[in-house]
Amino acid sequence: MPAKGIAILGSGIFATEAHLPAIATLGDAIELKAVYSRSNKSASTFARSAQDILKLSHALDVYHDEDPAASLDVLLARSDIAAVIVVLPITVQPKVILKALAAGKHVLSEKPVAPDVSQGRALIQEYESKYKSRGLVWRVAENFEAEPGYRAARRAIEDGKIGKVAFYNACVVNYIDENSKWYNTPWRTVPDYQGGFLLDGGVHTIASLRVVLPSALQTVSAFASLAKDILPPQDTINAIVRNVDGSHGLVELTWGAPTVTRAKQAGNNITVTGTEGWLEITRANGVMRIAVHTITRDKDGKSTGETEEVIEEKEVGIQREIESFLRATDGSDDGVDDPRSTLVDVAFIEAALNSNGAPVDLVALAKV
Amino acid sequence: MPAKGIAILGSGIFATEAHLPAIATLGDAIELKAVYSRSNKSASTFARSAQDILKLSHALDVYHDEDPAASLDVLLARSDIAAVIVVLPITVQPKVILKALAAGKHVLSEKPVAPDVSQGRALIQEYESKYKSRGLVWRVAENFEAEPGYRAARRAIEDGKIGKVAFYNACVVNYIDENSKWYNTPWRTVPDYQGGFLLDGGVHTIASLRVVLPSALQTVSAFASLAKDILPPQDTINAIVRNVDGSHGLVELTWGAPTVTRAKQAGNNITVTGTEGWLEITRANGVMRIAVHTITRDKDGKSTGETEEVIEEKEVGIQREIESFLRATDGSDDGVDDPRSTLVDVAFIEAALNSNGAPVDLVALAKV
Repeated sequence: MPAKGIAILGSGIFATEAHLPAIATLGDAIELKAVYSRSNKSASTFARSAQDILKLSHALDVYHDEDPAASLDVLLARSDIAAVIVVLPITVQPKVILKALAAGKHVLSEKPVAPDVSQGRALIQEYESKYKSRGLVWRVAENFEAEPGYRAARRAIEDGKIGKVAFYNACVVNYIDENSKWYNTPWRTVPDYQGGFLLDGGVHTIASLRVVLPSALQTVSAFASLAKDILPPQDTINAIVRNVDGSHGLVELTWGAPTVTRAKQAGNNITVTGTEGWLEITRANGVMRIAVHTITRDKDGKSTGETEEVIEEKEVGIQREIESFLRATDGSDDGVDDPRSTLVDVAFIEAALNSNGAPVDLVALAKV
Repeated sequence: MPAKGIAILGSGIFATEAHLPAIATLGDAIELKAVYSRSNKSASTFARSAQDILKLSHALDVYHDEDPAASLDVLLARSDIAAVIVVLPITVQPKVILKALAAGKHVLSEKPVAPDVSQGRALIQEYESKYKSRGLVWRVAENFEAEPGYRAARRAIEDGKIGKVAFYNACVVNYIDENSKWYNTPWRTVPDYQGGFLLDGGVHTIASLRVVLPSALQTVSAFASLAKDILPPQDTINAIVRNVDGSHGLVELTWGAPTVTRAKQAGNNITVTGTEGWLEITRANGVMRIAVHTITRDKDGKSTGETEEVIEEKEVGIQREIESFLRATDGSDDGVDDPRSTLVDVAFIEAALNSNGAPVDLVALAKV
């Protein structure tokens, strides 16, 4: 039986702006029944948005910490709720994930898998030893494994369109000021987890590299620092990475752009360069664009120029990952969003923050 | 007395296409009298170009290895030649520099200072202990220390226009194929020195960073590899660098772009990002363009936006460095192009080629 009856735990920006529209596209496949937030006000506001966006005939049931009769435990005791989507602040996630699993619910939790590798490893071990065997599904959401654009880029590489991967770049330069809606999330303004925005946002970049590159990330060396006072503890990582197949790349992550134009100039993108071509992945207006350039050769193998193929895919990763999660709860597991594979995203950020220029073995660090 | 009487040792592409036009701009300040090349044909061709470009009434004297009566030693024995410009293949340079110094000539030699740090260090030690005290000048050319554009970028930073330097990027992505004039220089096609194009061309990038950044490069960690079979031993470096002041940056050097568009997409440039703004240096059509973006603030210090100032400077570094060299031979040394300071450019490439992801102390490596 698929987990039709769903509760969402967390009612912040991402739950409202990303999850609700994604759930709306899924129609009858999912029935969002309840919302939990620490505050009554936030949960209630979300419930109204949900009723509106999902065109529900009646409001969501609202749970929060202000009334013991409407607590998270009460929500988790409901038998008509088979699964929860957890979209809470990073440090709150692990204990809520465990609580939900203990209550017998399937869990789709927002990235990162945990605030640090050690907690992530412990969480995965507990899940696998105690809950997986009981048929409970736990997956880590929003890590681009289900995103059609990144998957298309991976296929282009696997099809040999750029030859053997030689080197790559991933560049994310963001401008954040005191007015940013993300900055104004209380838990982001004073982060109680390593890296601040670098962990919260940086895991996306590493996840996309993990999806796009055919070979696993193996070693990272990095320097990390704080460029912008309002974004402690750190906002910038300059990293080099080597993959198992010997290819290597540069990863630039910063939320510390001093002005808007610095972020514009960088034009956040991923390029992968191979022996027979290269590809560039850019994102704009909800569409991912992959430009694949391939060397053309004459019959003697001499290069005669290049072709360009453009692949465009709508960004529907959240919708797809919820669909995949629902199928998994119905016994049809496609392996997407497995917590084990997402641990390397956290490992990368943790390694980069602590590297101080020295190489860190990501495979060893992310080993469960 | 300034060294008016000059010989040029080497008659390749760069001597013809860069040095001759630069010398032409200097008028009476310099008198190019002779050329030496290993082959008579190459030296004679250069002599004709020189007569044409410099509008000389009589041809240069031609020296080469094919006739003992016209050897380099014979050239260096001439008392009317006070200085030589050495533009020979990388591995030939050190012994020719020493030979010229031993003959009592001032020397302006092309970068890199030497094929590797060990030879560079030995060369500098020998110069300083035996020849500097006799008043002979030796400088390392074409390392951008005299380039007005890079100097203007440095001044903008020193003037505080971007605040404290936080992080930076230097990106050089080149497309080279079998038809490239640079590839078809015999000594570049089968390089007998570390790094191939990475040393030959990469030292330029490191030199420009050295000129632009107010703080010295201290530590580099890198991965190096060969992306394009025709460019052994290596053609690609991905590096992270940390400076003495704690700022850090990414350096991407490759001659292994698989197609022309990959190089175009990269748009070779340097960006320096600070706490109060950022600047970008780009080069096109002989002009260096520095766009300086500075945060504007209201009276309470709150950011209100940004200004952009564009500085454009013609690329005249080679002319300027020859002028500076001539002044130095006349006893007025401005410190530009000192061999000691250029040793770090070679040290960077050598460190990056051997780093394998581990940090290398550039200050220690480049210590004479």
